[in-house]
Amino acid sequence: MQLFIDNIIYFIPLLGLAALFFSYTKNVWITKQSTGSEKMTKISQHIRDGAIAFLKTEYKVLLWVVVIIAILLAYSNFGNDESSWLISVSFIMGAFCSGLAGFLGMMAATKANVRTTEAAKRGLGPALEIAFSGGSIMGMNVVGLGILGLSTLFIVYSNMDWDVTRVINVLSGFSLGASSVALFARVGGGIYTKAADVGADLAGKVIEGLPEDDHRNPATIADNVGDNVGDVAGMGADLFESYVGAIIGTMVLGAVFTSSQVPELNLEAVILPLVLAGAGIILSIIGTYFVKVKEGGNPQKGLNLGEFGTAGMMVVASYFIIKTILPESWMYNDFEYTSLGVFYSTLIGLAAGTLIGLITEYYTGTEYKPVHNIAYQSVTGSATTIIAGLGVGMSSTAFPVIIIAASIIGAFEFANLYGIAIAALGMLSTTGIQLAVDAYGPISDNAGGIAEMAELPKEVRERTDKLDAVGNTTAAIGKGFAIGSAALTALALFSAYMQQAEISIIDISKPIIMGGLFIGAMLPFLFSSMAMGAVGRAAKKMIIEVERQFREIPGLREGTAEAEYSKCVEISTNAAIKEMILPGLMAISVPVIVGFASKEMLAGLLAGVTTSGVLMAIFQSNAGGAWDNAKKLIEGNLNIDGIIYGKGSEPHKASVVGDTVGDPFKDTSGPSLNILIKLMSVVSLVIAPLIK
Amino acid sequence: MQLFIDNIIYFIPLLGLAALFFSYTKNVWITKQSTGSEKMTKISQHIRDGAIAFLKTEYKVLLWVVVIIAILLAYSNFGNDESSWLISVSFIMGAFCSGLAGFLGMMAATKANVRTTEAAKRGLGPALEIAFSGGSIMGMNVVGLGILGLSTLFIVYSNMDWDVTRVINVLSGFSLGASSVALFARVGGGIYTKAADVGADLAGKVIEGLPEDDHRNPATIADNVGDNVGDVAGMGADLFESYVGAIIGTMVLGAVFTSSQVPELNLEAVILPLVLAGAGIILSIIGTYFVKVKEGGNPQKGLNLGEFGTAGMMVVASYFIIKTILPESWMYNDFEYTSLGVFYSTLIGLAAGTLIGLITEYYTGTEYKPVHNIAYQSVTGSATTIIAGLGVGMSSTAFPVIIIAASIIGAFEFANLYGIAIAALGMLSTTGIQLAVDAYGPISDNAGGIAEMAELPKEVRERTDKLDAVGNTTAAIGKGFAIGSAALTALALFSAYMQQAEISIIDISKPIIMGGLFIGAMLPFLFSSMAMGAVGRAAKKMIIEVERQFREIPGLREGTAEAEYSKCVEISTNAAIKEMILPGLMAISVPVIVGFASKEMLAGLLAGVTTSGVLMAIFQSNAGGAWDNAKKLIEGNLNIDGIIYGKGSEPHKASVVGDTVGDPFKDTSGPSLNILIKLMSVVSLVIAPLIK
Repeated sequence: MQLFIDNIIYFIPLLGLAALFFSYTKNVWITKQSTGSEKMTKISQHIRDGAIAFLKTEYKVLLWVVVIIAILLAYSNFGNDESSWLISVSFIMGAFCSGLAGFLGMMAATKANVRTTEAAKRGLGPALEIAFSGGSIMGMNVVGLGILGLSTLFIVYSNMDWDVTRVINVLSGFSLGASSVALFARVGGGIYTKAADVGADLAGKVIEGLPEDDHRNPATIADNVGDNVGDVAGMGADLFESYVGAIIGTMVLGAVFTSSQVPELNLEAVILPLVLAGAGIILSIIGTYFVKVKEGGNPQKGLNLGEFGTAGMMVVASYFIIKTILPESWMYNDFEYTSLGVFYSTLIGLAAGTLIGLITEYYTGTEYKPVHNIAYQSVTGSATTIIAGLGVGMSSTAFPVIIIAASIIGAFEFANLYGIAIAALGMLSTTGIQLAVDAYGPISDNAGGIAEMAELPKEVRERTDKLDAVGNTTAAIGKGFAIGSAALTALALFSAYMQQAEISIIDISKPIIMGGLFIGAMLPFLFSSMAMGAVGRAAKKMIIEVERQFREIPGLREGTAEAEYSKCVEISTNAAIKEMILPGLMAISVPVIVGFASKEMLAGLLAGVTTSGVLMAIFQSNAGGAWDNAKKLIEGNLNIDGIIYGKGSEPHKASVVGDTVGDPFKDTSGPSLNILIKLMSVVSLVIAPLIK
Repeated sequence: MQLFIDNIIYFIPLLGLAALFFSYTKNVWITKQSTGSEKMTKISQHIRDGAIAFLKTEYKVLLWVVVIIAILLAYSNFGNDESSWLISVSFIMGAFCSGLAGFLGMMAATKANVRTTEAAKRGLGPALEIAFSGGSIMGMNVVGLGILGLSTLFIVYSNMDWDVTRVINVLSGFSLGASSVALFARVGGGIYTKAADVGADLAGKVIEGLPEDDHRNPATIADNVGDNVGDVAGMGADLFESYVGAIIGTMVLGAVFTSSQVPELNLEAVILPLVLAGAGIILSIIGTYFVKVKEGGNPQKGLNLGEFGTAGMMVVASYFIIKTILPESWMYNDFEYTSLGVFYSTLIGLAAGTLIGLITEYYTGTEYKPVHNIAYQSVTGSATTIIAGLGVGMSSTAFPVIIIAASIIGAFEFANLYGIAIAALGMLSTTGIQLAVDAYGPISDNAGGIAEMAELPKEVRERTDKLDAVGNTTAAIGKGFAIGSAALTALALFSAYMQQAEISIIDISKPIIMGGLFIGAMLPFLFSSMAMGAVGRAAKKMIIEVERQFREIPGLREGTAEAEYSKCVEISTNAAIKEMILPGLMAISVPVIVGFASKEMLAGLLAGVTTSGVLMAIFQSNAGGAWDNAKKLIEGNLNIDGIIYGKGSEPHKASVVGDTVGDPFKDTSGPSLNILIKLMSVVSLVIAPLIK
């Protein structure tokens, strides 16, 4: 048994390969499905081309960013020896895997969208199968590449004759690469998708009564491209970095239990996160087979069964894995660790993630009071709609934050800092299936768009709408996990930074730390304003272009001439690329500048950015989600005080304003903050040996 | 000389009395001025009655709150001896002085408003004189009652044969009383004024083309009452508590330099803040004589001369006062304090307040880019207007927070914790004139409202509008001081809490403290959502009442019948009273609950509430101010891309939505947060001896 445990690390890459192989078979299967009529194929080709064009442009810019950071890393001579350039290798690998995960996911999504539309002609079941398969390709690629990359590098570096702290420090470059690419991808993709979405929505105002996804709207292809580059590729890179960050954070904190300090342990606590993540892959693959729906049934049930089934299996598996790998108990720094304590911490993470997800659903779901309140306030116009939505977003921070605080305290009770890290990992161990469920949403959304543009029968659109609506709820739960895990991961990385920078205490009553706390807490506000400003500017350009096309292209208004879709795609692309640079560089450079000024101020800054970032992320995501669903609620004909309001009514117009304001909140700045807080922590962790 | 210094404390109450006497003479002078026509007098009487009715109702409720807290304080047996009930006396005195300051200020304002209108018939100069005199009554009452109350109690308690720590602990009840009343007054007044304002604005939608302040609008009296109970009485209580908080915070931190610890010092460092504040009173009185304007001139110049002139004199006076009272240098806890260092800290405070004020002006002034950007975005509708305003508000946090962080670090360098406290005091030492300038704004606003309702000639309204517009800028600068001083005062109180609770280090890497930080940072979000929700609910009731009146009162629409103004006043009053309770109690009870659970968690909570509260306050106040002025910019006919937009245009409608959203931001939740963070710190400070 001991021999098995000692060598278990060599099995981990195989689990990563298994995930990639699963993706591959799903991909082959999807490719075989019909893409429908010529018109549908052509539309989907437009979307695909636009998405590929964007990623190409984006990755070209990112290549420069990656090369420059890699050179800086290599020359900063971390370990003071000749092999210090290896951290650049980790960094490049991390950036590459992140980019690749996003790219593959997006390729799968742009294949699956039109095939979902075609399958929706046959029924709900076949449509769900294709949409979910498309999502699962994304999910499995993310976890597969994450595990494969991390474990392979770990094996290579472990043979370098370094001590384990050194190994993990060099390995943390992988996380830095992943986070850097993720931030740019999230911000760039987020700006793209919302510039196109807001632009397309407002363009509808130019021509009275132009419905959503109408093929005459020149911005409509850009809008659908946006779903893929923002909600799919951006989210893929986002979860890739969360996943990798949680694993690395746990490895760093587990590295203190080396055999020189704790006789009972060798590298078990370091390898444990990889093993748990690997088990999560297998269980996620099994979980995908639970996702099914019959005609007329509710797809929610199948998705829930997949997600919660996997989570349930994961609880059982974690218990046995932790019990097997870790010793019964050990002492370190006057704290008695137990394997059971570590297991409880994992449980806390899973429970906290689920709870936050359910709370998110309450604040953003159409069935509950908050969204109904926003809808009621829309009767008195857009101002009260906005006030109500901002209020819902702000109040929705209360319970998640209390849960996060309780999880921190609880996980720490059970297993100290290692407990906090493993709790984050607990939330993310089932990322494979969670991401599959998340990515299925935008695929269904796209499928509906294609149905509309191709002017297919109403029932097709109804089926894809049903899939899409379910996607909103599952996305809410996914966001809960993302935010909760971001908070815990950031704290784990924060503790890891303290260890590596040799800071034992961060006394907040010291002015330099308090100053750092203030500035750190401000950064999410500044970052959000940059992201929102970017969306506003890009959307404005889009509207001007749409107006130009309607003015200059004869026959466009009547539907006899084709719009110049690619011009709009180009505008979104250029704006997104240009606008993602400044916030991205800010996130990377601020910790470096502050860190070299004072490593303690940097600690204060990280604490500030984490707390305020989590709050702003929850506030913005939930306000945006609630506005979106308040609009949907009215579109489904809502009875307010005896009058029924529907599409086109005054309250509906007010709710559209709410939704438009919410768009950059929930899809650009909100989710980017999750990455921001982790990226800043990872940057600090990486530079820690230089500033200690 | 030494004898003079030893007895200087006995002169301080006289300076407080001087301020009250100045107020009294101004009041007598104003009362003598003409109230104009019968119609004007009647309207102003309506406003005055409404304001008095509201304060009566509010104070009745507050009486209960004060009595209950006073009993709890008396029974919690702080000093473990028989005189511990004296903290209740301090508390009641603080609450009483705060309420009285608000009441007197409001009485003066409701006297000055109609007389300003009448004087505006004669010219700009006479109107400014009355409006500003009305404001200065408020300003001098606030500082006079503050200094008189604090110094008298200090003299009494100093004769109790207690040690100085005990004296100041009992004295801090005064600050608690002031903060408690201030929070309820700010929240209640803020809800009142914005419910009436939003209600009145939206009621304008009910009847096409009903202009602002039209006498047919039943909510218009409530709206004008709101200016007095929110912007005057609320602000008076607010600044009273800031002023008192800054003085007490400095006294607590100065109390460590007693003769047993520092041979060179007796109580000089404790008395210094009172002396500086007393000097500020005299200089503020002198400053009021600088405020003058000629017909056709710009009132801004006179106000600036008054404000900056007083600040300049204060710098000189501080130098001599500090040099005279404090010894050249002394050692304490390995830190070398110098009188020059203390003076530099005062300077930092004054400079930081002015800088933050100027930045606030940049982000909210009609002459600068941010407001112009919002106005441009209004061309594409209310959604982009809202996005732009939120962006401006968020980005406006950056520089003020950096200045605050730098002030904390700088003031600490010069004079340790005492430096931070004295910097806050530096900002607030000229509160007398600052508040006079602040309170002059709503008086001018009211004067304009009366001119409109009484249907006076256009030129009268133009003159009051000119005064009002200047008021907006000066209010922005005042807000900068309020926010900056709140941050520093909260930190000073925070340090005072640590000392009294015997906490030497707050290690943020401890989970219990990190948990406190998270929950603390969340509270301003929850608090803001409560305040905004309250405004939304109350405004809705108001709109329904307005609709009812137009439906049921024959002749109202045509202007032949009078509206039932008092019904609307009643709705605002009841809503404000009902809705202020929950957020108010939350602010008081949370620190108590958390503090008894863990005094360290409470420290983390205070740090969180301070950082996030400052950010949310700046964000909301500036977003609201910027939206307001973007609307004003368009109302002054704005040329955007060659087209001139004015009142009634589509961009104007969009900007009205922005302004309506901004109303609760800038006048309810935003400014309440300043008090929230200090109230929580004061509550902690007061309970510190119980939980140490």
